[in-house]
Amino acid sequence: MTVLAVADQEKENQTLGGAGLRGQSAGVTAICTVGKTGTGLTYRGYDISDLAHHAEFEEVAYLLLKGKLPTQAELEAYKQVLIAKRGLPAALKTVLEAIPADAHPMDVMRTGCSMLGNLDQEHDFSQQQDKTDTLLAMFPAIICYWYRYSHDGLRIDTESSKEPCIGGYFLEMLTGRRPSPLHKKVMHCSLVLYAEHEFNASTFAGRVCASTLSDLHSCVTAAIGTLRGPLHGGANEAAMDMISQWFSPDEAEQGIMFMLDNKEKIMGFGHAVYRESDPRNALIKEWAKQLSEDVKDRHLYAVSERVEQVLKREKGLFANADFFHASAYHFMGIPTKLFTPIFVMSRLTGWAAHIFEQREHNRIIRPSADYDGPDHQDWLPIDERQ
Amino acid sequence: MTVLAVADQEKENQTLGGAGLRGQSAGVTAICTVGKTGTGLTYRGYDISDLAHHAEFEEVAYLLLKGKLPTQAELEAYKQVLIAKRGLPAALKTVLEAIPADAHPMDVMRTGCSMLGNLDQEHDFSQQQDKTDTLLAMFPAIICYWYRYSHDGLRIDTESSKEPCIGGYFLEMLTGRRPSPLHKKVMHCSLVLYAEHEFNASTFAGRVCASTLSDLHSCVTAAIGTLRGPLHGGANEAAMDMISQWFSPDEAEQGIMFMLDNKEKIMGFGHAVYRESDPRNALIKEWAKQLSEDVKDRHLYAVSERVEQVLKREKGLFANADFFHASAYHFMGIPTKLFTPIFVMSRLTGWAAHIFEQREHNRIIRPSADYDGPDHQDWLPIDERQ
Repeated sequence: MTVLAVADQEKENQTLGGAGLRGQSAGVTAICTVGKTGTGLTYRGYDISDLAHHAEFEEVAYLLLKGKLPTQAELEAYKQVLIAKRGLPAALKTVLEAIPADAHPMDVMRTGCSMLGNLDQEHDFSQQQDKTDTLLAMFPAIICYWYRYSHDGLRIDTESSKEPCIGGYFLEMLTGRRPSPLHKKVMHCSLVLYAEHEFNASTFAGRVCASTLSDLHSCVTAAIGTLRGPLHGGANEAAMDMISQWFSPDEAEQGIMFMLDNKEKIMGFGHAVYRESDPRNALIKEWAKQLSEDVKDRHLYAVSERVEQVLKREKGLFANADFFHASAYHFMGIPTKLFTPIFVMSRLTGWAAHIFEQREHNRIIRPSADYDGPDHQDWLPIDERQ
Repeated sequence: MTVLAVADQEKENQTLGGAGLRGQSAGVTAICTVGKTGTGLTYRGYDISDLAHHAEFEEVAYLLLKGKLPTQAELEAYKQVLIAKRGLPAALKTVLEAIPADAHPMDVMRTGCSMLGNLDQEHDFSQQQDKTDTLLAMFPAIICYWYRYSHDGLRIDTESSKEPCIGGYFLEMLTGRRPSPLHKKVMHCSLVLYAEHEFNASTFAGRVCASTLSDLHSCVTAAIGTLRGPLHGGANEAAMDMISQWFSPDEAEQGIMFMLDNKEKIMGFGHAVYRESDPRNALIKEWAKQLSEDVKDRHLYAVSERVEQVLKREKGLFANADFFHASAYHFMGIPTKLFTPIFVMSRLTGWAAHIFEQREHNRIIRPSADYDGPDHQDWLPIDERQ
């Protein structure tokens, strides 16, 4: 994929006017603030730091989807609902088995979600919570079923796990082993951090889709496809590809200086909304450090830290949520190409909350455009054209 | 699906602010104008009336995608490219056969497009025209393969047709018979009319997706899902359901008056951008009339005309592109639930043209939101919640 270098992108932007709708309000939301209060990110008024330190992912999913933090009984009941939905329909397995091993995992997620729309159609908006719960339960199963079948020739039983939570369930489906308590904690934190981020591009695509009163699976499919782009969800994978080239901090520093000289875009740094720092970075970085010690890593964490320092020193750039996610996921043994599907498992909660909200106060989203094309053209019969 | 009545929707809109981005520019385009010059709709400067009267759909596809009208030789070569791409990959057939007969046909289109993304991945933007051509060639095959298999138990050979054009090809795949010259002409006109319409919701969803530099199949999948909504692509189906209840113009008039009294939303009338009339209406209406005579229709066309008159008289509302499409498609024997997939076969050209354009001058589309949610909330441990 063509990715513009940082400097070119900035130059381009000066001539694009309202092209990115930056700073223009596209609607009202009660779900999230970015860059406004506390450490800079809140879900339904709760600071991301509190949520990431104290809450399980299912607790945050409940908060986003139902508007309040659950009691212990509500949380346990909600987890049971999700556990009961882990079985994939036979027709969905058929589809996943038809997807080749060299497919892009985000295409697998998008297709799995779209296929489920055929098998478990949302006929009425009163079903929206139930259909969302099904997607939440099945996304780890969908990606792992495809991955294990296409890569290992194995048909996994997606209902066999005793792991009660989505993060641990994903790790068990992926590896066939019960995950460690540390890994489960990291997955909770990671899924909490990625769950919601106001009107980012994928959420906005979901809301545009919802604004025609389309069904939930269409909206989520649109959001997955949008998250797939390297300027959005692919950043943690790109960061992993970058840091895995270097075997010492000094080598990393040389590499980064070279990239900066060549005006290459460095993924995992800077942000469309945050100006000073991304509050999610410190939270995942702490876990990346612990994981690095846990696996007795010799250079990847140190390389990551140096990259962060050099970009701060040279360009004033800060690491965003994606950068230390790369090493954290890697330390847990997750293949790089499955990083963005994890983002999907988490962000589904934010997408769905926004879809519900869009439906409640709907107006079709249909902006205008500035025309710079040809003036009136007279029709020319085909045999007179050149 | 919940569809708000007209009056409620208007009332809602007063409180929604910029929710629909109505009248706000979201970018620059050289593809289309709506409500500006000529009869009110131009593709690359050509008036829709000229195109609908003189051009084949493939000619318009060429114009939208490549920026100029083709010469005879270019048009013939382009048609050959499309004809050569009609064979569905085996894995795609497997997926279509796994989709049940009661699925929503737009879910089938969305899933077919998404699945193709796994099998024929766009690795680089230099492939965008080729991947678009494949979709253009395969969309009629995808919907008809699923339809004939799930409804008639038949596996059609999608490469068997001698029909050179997409509209005629679709009709032959659907019915198993060569279409009449009249039907082929109507399909050209219909596909030309639906091909492009500036920053409508589905196109805009496609551009939001493209703005993260995602692949073509993701963008088109997002657009299909957005078109699926009853406020967008479903209008011609809804119009068909409405007019088929009535067996005389007088009965239709009574029915419409009753609906207006009950503030029910009437699909196929009015438009988000056009204020006086939809230039596409007169063009398809003329063909609906000819088809009505061709099939010796006794009331459907007359019912449609009366509905149009009554809504003009009572509410000043005009028929849009969708309304006479309903009877026109019906007269050609097309099942109502396949109306919106035809829209997809056509609008793909506009979507792709916009995706190409977005990529050329890209900035990620990431608007802001007005927050009206809770203020800062202190964290509450789970055993202290109520």
